[in-house]
Amino acid sequence: MTTDLVAAVDIGGTKIAGALVDGTGDLLHRVQLPTPAGESADRVMAALTEVLGGLTRHASWSRVAAVGIGSAGPVDARTGTVSPVNIPGWRDFPLVEGVRATTGELPVTLVGDGAAIAAGEHWRGAARGRSDVLCMVVSTGVGGGLITDGRLRPGPTGNAGHIGHISVDFNGDLCPCGGRGCVERIASGTNIARYALAAGWRPADPEGDTTAAGVAVAARDGHPLALEAFDRSARALAAGIAATATLIEIETVVIGGGVSQSGEVLFAPLRRALREYATLPFVRDLEVVPAQLGTDAGLVGAAAACWSDPGTFLAVGAAGN
Amino acid sequence: MTTDLVAAVDIGGTKIAGALVDGTGDLLHRVQLPTPAGESADRVMAALTEVLGGLTRHASWSRVAAVGIGSAGPVDARTGTVSPVNIPGWRDFPLVEGVRATTGELPVTLVGDGAAIAAGEHWRGAARGRSDVLCMVVSTGVGGGLITDGRLRPGPTGNAGHIGHISVDFNGDLCPCGGRGCVERIASGTNIARYALAAGWRPADPEGDTTAAGVAVAARDGHPLALEAFDRSARALAAGIAATATLIEIETVVIGGGVSQSGEVLFAPLRRALREYATLPFVRDLEVVPAQLGTDAGLVGAAAACWSDPGTFLAVGAAGN
Repeated sequence: MTTDLVAAVDIGGTKIAGALVDGTGDLLHRVQLPTPAGESADRVMAALTEVLGGLTRHASWSRVAAVGIGSAGPVDARTGTVSPVNIPGWRDFPLVEGVRATTGELPVTLVGDGAAIAAGEHWRGAARGRSDVLCMVVSTGVGGGLITDGRLRPGPTGNAGHIGHISVDFNGDLCPCGGRGCVERIASGTNIARYALAAGWRPADPEGDTTAAGVAVAARDGHPLALEAFDRSARALAAGIAATATLIEIETVVIGGGVSQSGEVLFAPLRRALREYATLPFVRDLEVVPAQLGTDAGLVGAAAACWSDPGTFLAVGAAGN
Repeated sequence: MTTDLVAAVDIGGTKIAGALVDGTGDLLHRVQLPTPAGESADRVMAALTEVLGGLTRHASWSRVAAVGIGSAGPVDARTGTVSPVNIPGWRDFPLVEGVRATTGELPVTLVGDGAAIAAGEHWRGAARGRSDVLCMVVSTGVGGGLITDGRLRPGPTGNAGHIGHISVDFNGDLCPCGGRGCVERIASGTNIARYALAAGWRPADPEGDTTAAGVAVAARDGHPLALEAFDRSARALAAGIAATATLIEIETVVIGGGVSQSGEVLFAPLRRALREYATLPFVRDLEVVPAQLGTDAGLVGAAAACWSDPGTFLAVGAAGN
C-alpha cells in the first residue's frame, strides 16, 4: 500500500479544517467545522475529533503516512500541547495526544499557524524557490513564520516568526499579550479600525462598514484619517519587518490575510516605510510580495511541515513522534 | 605536516588583532595594531597586512589550515567585501582578496564581528552547550550574533543578529544608520551618557567621568537621573531581546561589552524589563548571562567560524572559498 498522503489540520479561533493532502500539495478531501472557541476544552476537542473522523472515514485514509497540525498559538511542539490565545478552554492542552486517539500510531507534527502558513507559501505559493523568507498574516491579528536556508524554521517550540508580538514602541500601549507596543497592537485590522474611529473617521454611510475593510475603502477615496490609519499600521509593520530582516537576514516578505486584501492602500505605505526602517546594506533590497494561497495556506503548510525534505516523511519541530 | 591551527583576525574601529588559534580555542601567538580608522582604504589594509605578516612569519604558520575574519560591519560574506560604519575608508572594500594577498590559497571565512563573538562564546564561553542563543555586545555601540540549533547562524551575508539596529521606537529619534528608534540609539553606552547629561546629571567631581562608566558609578550610588538613564537603556535592550526571542526562539542571552561591566546596574533593570516584554510562554524563561571571553571573543570566534562542525575545516557564511 502506498502511503503518499498527509492528513493536515488547521486549527483557528473561527474554524477547524482538515484535509487529505497529496505529495504535490493538492487537497483531495476536505472537512471543516466552526470552532466552538468559547466552550470547554472537551467540546473543542470533540469538534476536532469530528473533523478527523471525516478524514479517517475516507476511502484514501489507508494512504495517509503522517498527520500535520498547524494550530493557533502559542503551541509547544516539544510537549505536543497548545494554549491558543483565542481558544481560552485550551491551556497546555494535550493536542497531539487528543489527535492520536483518532489517528492511531501515525507520526504527528505540530507547528504554530504562522509556521504552517510559511511552510505552505514556501511549498506552493509566493515563497516558492526562495531561501530566507518571513511569511505574515495581517488580519484581525498579526502572525508569521520563517523560512531560513530554504527550509521551514518553526523553532524548538513551533512558534518562531511570531512577529505580531514584538515591540516596535517600547513605551507604547499595553498589548493583551502583556507586552507593550507590539506590532499587532498597532498594525492589525482591529487596531487600524480602532485608530481611525478614535481619530474621528466615520464611514460615508452611517450604517457602513467600520472594520479595517471600511477604512480601506475610505483610504482609497483619499480620506485623510483613513490614510493616516493605514500609514501608521504600515510603519509599525515596516519596523517589525525590518527588525526581522536585520536579525535573521530575510530577503522576501510574503504578506497575506484580510488586511493585505486592501492591496496598495497597505502595500504602498509599507514599501515607503520599509525604505525608512530597513537601511543597512544587507536588508535594503528586501522584497514585499502578496501571499498566493489564501485560506488554504494553513492546510497546505501543515502538510508541508511533515516533510523535512520534500518527499521524506520526517517530523519538523518534532513533537512526541 | 599537521594543519591544526586557524589564523584568526578581529577587525574593529579601534584595533586590528590577529592570532594563531588551536583546536581548543587557545591563542598561541598574537599580534595587534591600532586601526588607522580615519585614513585611506590602503592605509587600513596596510595595517591589516602588517598584522597578518606577524602571523605568517611565525614558526607555526605551516600548521595553519584556514583564515577566519570577524570584521566590524556591515560585511558581505557572499562577495568578501566589508563597509564598516566606523572605518569610512572601507566601502565595499574587497577584504578577502586583500587578505589572500598575504595568506595565499588558504580558505577564508568572513563574518561580522557580532557573529564572531557569538561563535566564540558558544565555543569557549558563556554560550557553551546551549543551542539557541543571542550573544550581544553593549559598549559604545550595540551588536550581536546568533546561535541556532547549536550552530553559528551568520546569515547569508554574515550580519545576522544585528540587534543594535532594530527599531524598538518606530516614532523615535533618527539613528545614524538612517533608521529610527534603533536599540543602539537608545541603549548604547554613548546614549546612556547622552541621556543622563541631557536630563541634568553631572558627576559629583566636576572633572569626573561623564561616560556611561561614570553614569554607572552614580547609579550605584542611587543617583535618580543615572538610574533612569540605565533603566531606559535596559528597557530598550529588553524590548529588542524579547523581539529576538519571539522571532527566533532563543533561550539564552549572553551580554558582554563595556556597559555590561556595570553589572547589576544594567542587569537588574534588564531582567525586570524582560519580564515586561518577553511575555509569551515560549520566551518567558529566557535567561540572561554575562559574557565570559572579554576582548578575546572576536578572535576565538573568528577561528570558530571556520568550522562547520568542531574539528572540520569548512567555511561558514562561505565567502569566496
